[in-house]
Amino acid sequence: MKQSSRNIAIIGSGLVGSLLSIYLKKMGHTITVFDRRPDIRNVEFSGRSINLAMSNRGWQSLREVGIEDEIKKIAIPLDKRAMHVIGKPMYFQKYGKDGEAIWSISRGVLNRKMIDLAEEAGVEFRFNEKVWNVDLPEATLYTGESEKGEWKAYNYDIIFGCDGAFSRVRHKMQRRSRFDYSQDFIDVGYKELSIPANEDGSHKLDKNSFHIWPRGTFMLIAMPNIDGSFTCTLFMPFEGEVSFESIKTKEQATSFFKTYFPNVRKEIENLTGDFFKNPTSAMVTIKCYPWTYWDKVALVGDSAHAIVPFYGQGMNAGFEDIFALKQIIEKHGDDWGTIFETYQKERKPNADAIAELSYRNFMEMSSKTADAKFLLQKKIEKRFAELHPDKWIPAYSRVTFSNKPYAEALAMGDAQEEIMKEVMQMPDIESLWDSDEVEQKILSLL
Amino acid sequence: MKQSSRNIAIIGSGLVGSLLSIYLKKMGHTITVFDRRPDIRNVEFSGRSINLAMSNRGWQSLREVGIEDEIKKIAIPLDKRAMHVIGKPMYFQKYGKDGEAIWSISRGVLNRKMIDLAEEAGVEFRFNEKVWNVDLPEATLYTGESEKGEWKAYNYDIIFGCDGAFSRVRHKMQRRSRFDYSQDFIDVGYKELSIPANEDGSHKLDKNSFHIWPRGTFMLIAMPNIDGSFTCTLFMPFEGEVSFESIKTKEQATSFFKTYFPNVRKEIENLTGDFFKNPTSAMVTIKCYPWTYWDKVALVGDSAHAIVPFYGQGMNAGFEDIFALKQIIEKHGDDWGTIFETYQKERKPNADAIAELSYRNFMEMSSKTADAKFLLQKKIEKRFAELHPDKWIPAYSRVTFSNKPYAEALAMGDAQEEIMKEVMQMPDIESLWDSDEVEQKILSLL
Repeated sequence: MKQSSRNIAIIGSGLVGSLLSIYLKKMGHTITVFDRRPDIRNVEFSGRSINLAMSNRGWQSLREVGIEDEIKKIAIPLDKRAMHVIGKPMYFQKYGKDGEAIWSISRGVLNRKMIDLAEEAGVEFRFNEKVWNVDLPEATLYTGESEKGEWKAYNYDIIFGCDGAFSRVRHKMQRRSRFDYSQDFIDVGYKELSIPANEDGSHKLDKNSFHIWPRGTFMLIAMPNIDGSFTCTLFMPFEGEVSFESIKTKEQATSFFKTYFPNVRKEIENLTGDFFKNPTSAMVTIKCYPWTYWDKVALVGDSAHAIVPFYGQGMNAGFEDIFALKQIIEKHGDDWGTIFETYQKERKPNADAIAELSYRNFMEMSSKTADAKFLLQKKIEKRFAELHPDKWIPAYSRVTFSNKPYAEALAMGDAQEEIMKEVMQMPDIESLWDSDEVEQKILSLL
Repeated sequence: MKQSSRNIAIIGSGLVGSLLSIYLKKMGHTITVFDRRPDIRNVEFSGRSINLAMSNRGWQSLREVGIEDEIKKIAIPLDKRAMHVIGKPMYFQKYGKDGEAIWSISRGVLNRKMIDLAEEAGVEFRFNEKVWNVDLPEATLYTGESEKGEWKAYNYDIIFGCDGAFSRVRHKMQRRSRFDYSQDFIDVGYKELSIPANEDGSHKLDKNSFHIWPRGTFMLIAMPNIDGSFTCTLFMPFEGEVSFESIKTKEQATSFFKTYFPNVRKEIENLTGDFFKNPTSAMVTIKCYPWTYWDKVALVGDSAHAIVPFYGQGMNAGFEDIFALKQIIEKHGDDWGTIFETYQKERKPNADAIAELSYRNFMEMSSKTADAKFLLQKKIEKRFAELHPDKWIPAYSRVTFSNKPYAEALAMGDAQEEIMKEVMQMPDIESLWDSDEVEQKILSLL
């Protein structure tokens, strides 16, 4: 449908804000992006970021607006996990079918590139401009040096809140009656570390793998960057026997890595320096509803649905919001009230589903990897999926290598879980697990 | 244990704030209560309040500080429900055993009395003083005419946030990392209406009853006041066929009451006037954790755990917080860090339990009262409880007429529910329900 040009503000110049600005600019709107932080192109990265895993949903959203190829240049495909298990040689686990891969990208590198592309498209950025208040019914925002200082008012037709998990736009909506909201932190934190490139610029570990050192309640991961380095992330409980709290000195940090990550300790650059310099960050699931206010204000990405990173879908989900929004805008033209209502109704169940899937992955990784019954179940599922790839698509593939709604992936996962519950109750399943009987049982339950 | 006198601020002069001020003052502390609103003793009531039902937990908390008798003077005991069901003559349902009753009190009348009592005890009140910010680690609060205007700083040893469901103190805590928080609104709103006294000052309906007009998705209740009037509350969905949204004119309001509440329509004073003058209020469940910050700040009452009013336990739960806090203070003396840690660990599961029980009561009332199977189950439970009062204490009694922890009441309710699930699966239960067989079945499952 026909679209009239609107004067639109986007709060937040992160990944979602900058991609949305490109989409809307290309539809003919006037776009101003506000960010309270300085231009990320002029500052050092924060040392608190997990590398991104771009998968199908993300690529689809970039393709739609013609920038997929540009972004592929700064991404590295990972077609497998590299498992570094104690007491075993390193081994690989392929992610999906041939050609299926997730792509590792540095958040900072991607963000810089997206802002470049948005500027090229004609988007105006106002960095270092702090939004302190938003008048929702008037779509007016107020900026200033400080919360108590003088403010400047800007009026728009529409405001998008792409200002992340701790969104001020949502915060304003939250103070209204009948706004549902939750924030749930997990007891595990994370810390960024780094493995530099070899002197010739090559990678120190296999560059087409997602490297994992699983250690029960904690784990280390490493994802490659195009400059030959790896960004590592250590996930570990805040408190407890082996925890961030329990590592207070350089000696403790060195001994911790020597004990648990001996095959990579030497590769990690300035290990103890970074360990104490880089912050320990928290992870949170944020849910809210509604996501929009009349035809004036909408939340997109983490501001509407922050999730824990254990499915690698946070950015993908935010990009998919934008892709979905475009289809809805094309259908409803200038009727932004209907656009926003349709958008939130369509996306909310999917956001809830990926939040649940991500949280479950966290629970699996942190508490079930030592559970023999759970591991056996996974083995049975894997065997069946290999025998009947058309009948049993693993949850990971449905989320990562498909564009079908997250809510469907969750529902199918629940259905598979029900089947496996029955299978696991078969007598003597421990020895029967790779038998025809088990295969037939699953077939009969499908 | 010995207690040193502290300089303590309480934010909020509502029921919980004023009772806490009396407790702490009597322990020898210096107490200042701040409230952004004017002194409730000098203003008209708001027209948005549901009458309170004081039950065992509330009375215990008042007794502990020696003001039970004073408050009983402004309360009316209700030992039964008066059911106004369409197509049936009005009938009574006794609440508990002889002598067991809940007590109806007007929120405004009670609040005024509590502030009088607190002042008599030596508590200082600062009304019309708006707290805009709290420095948690310093226990400093900032007040001023407006958020952007000049602020005055007050430093205390300890600050209590008793500022209700939309607490500013909690709000300040919420912006910190690792603070779990949720607010969930229900789709039903409420509106206050009033039945005035007869000319001779007597009540127009039975004064020792909690009057209920259940109508499926909506209902009217009436609770007596000591001046001969009743405070009525209409609970109804915000949107839908029969809803607040669907009643827009005086004619629609009159016809609504004529259709659904014919036996009380004439009694309700200025029906259509109040219907449109009084606000339609929302109801919310709020959960959060932690409730305290170091040894400096603690949340008490609704600010920590707002619940929907369908169990009549909101005030009782808040008062019980204070009762529990006193036991903990007496044990740990001046160690406010331990006091606060113990307080939140002990009270949080109980607050979660009464939130769940209250929400379930809402669900039962709004969606299950038309479910024949559910009603049959309730009949079976009632019969069994009458036959074996020592073996089956109904959930309502455990919550209302006991001081055992809410979490226990919830757990026992869940256990009873499991038993009833099996009972309801007995063949031909519809005709067998009052048989020995069913009674023996329950006995065998206990």
